[in-house]
Amino acid sequence: MLTLYYAPGTCALATHLALEFSGAPYEAKRLDFRQQQQRTPEYLRVNPKGRVPALVTDRGVLTETPALLQYIAQSFPQAGLAPLDDPFLLARGNEFNSFLCSTVHVNHAHKGRGYRWVDADDTAALEAMKNKVAQTMAESFTLIEERMLQGPWVLGERFSTSDPYLYTLARWLGGDGVDVNRFPKVADHMRRMEAQPQVQKVVALHQA
Amino acid sequence: MLTLYYAPGTCALATHLALEFSGAPYEAKRLDFRQQQQRTPEYLRVNPKGRVPALVTDRGVLTETPALLQYIAQSFPQAGLAPLDDPFLLARGNEFNSFLCSTVHVNHAHKGRGYRWVDADDTAALEAMKNKVAQTMAESFTLIEERMLQGPWVLGERFSTSDPYLYTLARWLGGDGVDVNRFPKVADHMRRMEAQPQVQKVVALHQA
Repeated sequence: MLTLYYAPGTCALATHLALEFSGAPYEAKRLDFRQQQQRTPEYLRVNPKGRVPALVTDRGVLTETPALLQYIAQSFPQAGLAPLDDPFLLARGNEFNSFLCSTVHVNHAHKGRGYRWVDADDTAALEAMKNKVAQTMAESFTLIEERMLQGPWVLGERFSTSDPYLYTLARWLGGDGVDVNRFPKVADHMRRMEAQPQVQKVVALHQA
Repeated sequence: MLTLYYAPGTCALATHLALEFSGAPYEAKRLDFRQQQQRTPEYLRVNPKGRVPALVTDRGVLTETPALLQYIAQSFPQAGLAPLDDPFLLARGNEFNSFLCSTVHVNHAHKGRGYRWVDADDTAALEAMKNKVAQTMAESFTLIEERMLQGPWVLGERFSTSDPYLYTLARWLGGDGVDVNRFPKVADHMRRMEAQPQVQKVVALHQA
């Protein structure tokens, strides 16, 4: 049995969706970040980074969204969530997931988590970071729209773990000051995702 | 035939080392970042992100270090660079690589590439970012030393793509104001890497 730790509004939604699409049995445990539940001694024993997602498996705890997405795809291959036997296509999906993780998510994090990279009391620097988020998110999604998202799914006709991950980060655009409708393929991708019962179920849980 | 684009001092060293350890035939093409060769129209046709590494394959160009490392391991399995048939162990390595990419490399980038996240003429904010790099890099490497690096290699007795990647980022510590000897396991890992002829060959090329 797998146990996923998640918090609403975080990138853990991507892993949660991948688990739901995988058909695997799993349990989802919610953390309340407003109550700093990711900083309790109990949770730091699960994930010393104090973040989500974290996936508890029979062999230990795994973290980092791109690693979790491929782990789920490889552990439940009947769900067909990654082109496991084609190193090039698998790399194409991992390239996309890595870009979301290390560039797009990082751009977004400069809005609310700038204290990671400057002193937490340097309000001018924190404000300077916030002010550029709409620009950097728009630049990232321009690249996704024009060069990466093949349509209708990220890898073309084939649904993969990159789709719940893209959907998760595209949901942040509005709050980051970017209208998703500037990116017609991304907007279409969001609608296709939201038409699926697995997405409706998990999103409702995160919004509850 | 694979062609790797790299530049000295960048994370492309990790992919270059993985290629060398893989035994695959490849060509390495050097870009001079001081001459902004990553911004030429020719190179932007290879990689529209204007960064390295980029790996030209028969089926297209791949980017993003974690994706490239697994692609090389999966394409040349006889080199044994990743535990491909063990989803958990493979995820453990990918988790490590993703942490290096999205946390450690990002921490380091706030020293010289802060203009990605604030206006390029906001010298106070850029300075504020630089001032925290030694702290964030030390925190990341404390986690690596105490929780992640099993020793002697990242995954224990088994060498993997995580080893050239860790070595590449550990080389940045001195310039980031952190003495690697604060982290005995990481320092030992560096020495083991540098004892290998593949590392000596590729590092000499990057330093030439």
